[in-house]
Amino acid sequence: MTEAAGPREAAGPRGRRPGPTETREKILAEARDLFAEKGYDGASLRAIARAAGVDPALVHHFFGNKEGVFVEAMRFPVDPSVVLPRVISAPRERLGETMVRTFLEVWRDEDRRAPMLAMLRSAMTNERAAALLREFVTAVLLGRVTRDAEVPPLGVQAAAGQMIGLMILRYVVRMEPLASASEDELIELVAPAIQRYLTLTF
Amino acid sequence: MTEAAGPREAAGPRGRRPGPTETREKILAEARDLFAEKGYDGASLRAIARAAGVDPALVHHFFGNKEGVFVEAMRFPVDPSVVLPRVISAPRERLGETMVRTFLEVWRDEDRRAPMLAMLRSAMTNERAAALLREFVTAVLLGRVTRDAEVPPLGVQAAAGQMIGLMILRYVVRMEPLASASEDELIELVAPAIQRYLTLTF
Repeated sequence: MTEAAGPREAAGPRGRRPGPTETREKILAEARDLFAEKGYDGASLRAIARAAGVDPALVHHFFGNKEGVFVEAMRFPVDPSVVLPRVISAPRERLGETMVRTFLEVWRDEDRRAPMLAMLRSAMTNERAAALLREFVTAVLLGRVTRDAEVPPLGVQAAAGQMIGLMILRYVVRMEPLASASEDELIELVAPAIQRYLTLTF
Repeated sequence: MTEAAGPREAAGPRGRRPGPTETREKILAEARDLFAEKGYDGASLRAIARAAGVDPALVHHFFGNKEGVFVEAMRFPVDPSVVLPRVISAPRERLGETMVRTFLEVWRDEDRRAPMLAMLRSAMTNERAAALLREFVTAVLLGRVTRDAEVPPLGVQAAAGQMIGLMILRYVVRMEPLASASEDELIELVAPAIQRYLTLTF
């Protein structure tokens, strides 16, 4: 069946070799399936490459590392490798303010807020999505914050809970006066609590 | 068509007059529709009674007032008229601890936690449910807390956000160590933030 006659480009159903965009999407689709099936820790970059029929080096080329694949596959609105260092490198006495300000800036833009809410919605209605979010946050976010900023996990999670609840009431339930409060008002309101959570010592 | 012959009990399709349970359920079904259609403030107890074909006095008899109808219709797991006075009447310096302890006690019981999560899920995926939750919380809960305990609305909402986020991470995403933390650990963790929110002065 492998007739040498036809050009290789004509092998696919649409008569051409898949372009980089299609290959990228194929990798992400397989990654989503594998992450859903095996969880963040269980899905290796090599297995994702194999499922997509590409060389692992190409996955590296497109996404850097497994975290990068996950961020893209889950349509993470924020790249933790960009946002986290900013929060972590803030002066210790301004950790809370920096974290709240960073979140508010991301949420300000509906295009970045929507996928974050979508992920939260999925996690709330689907056990697999919840498991994925749990593993990713535990493996990537928590690991880095607790290690680099020396914040106890319970403190990070209490802070995350505060920000999640704030996002829900402000943007989903749209409770007033929270929904219309300015970012400065919200920083004044919430930053002291976050600051305490991020500097707790147990 | 109103033949005097047959007994009135035989009028219904199942050959008997609806019992109190059926009437109660009928009222709740109509209330849910009206609350969904017109919102909490827009649906009067009289309109609910009319839609259910009963006397408003009967609605009063079954549910006390509109808040009671709403609580039942939405399957509220907690009766705010029981829980709120307990929080509000706490000594001012223990408002935070009392609120966190009260929530944790309610959540401990899965039968009371499940409908609370269901309501939150609905609000996150359905604009009508979000609107209902918003109006009810604004009209009933916030009104009472801000008035009786003299807490500014933003403080109450920040506290509510903290508790909602905590519930999501502990019971839905089941993030560790938060999911396994004892109630006393959580009170120690979160109560100071809630205390500050509930005693803020703007």
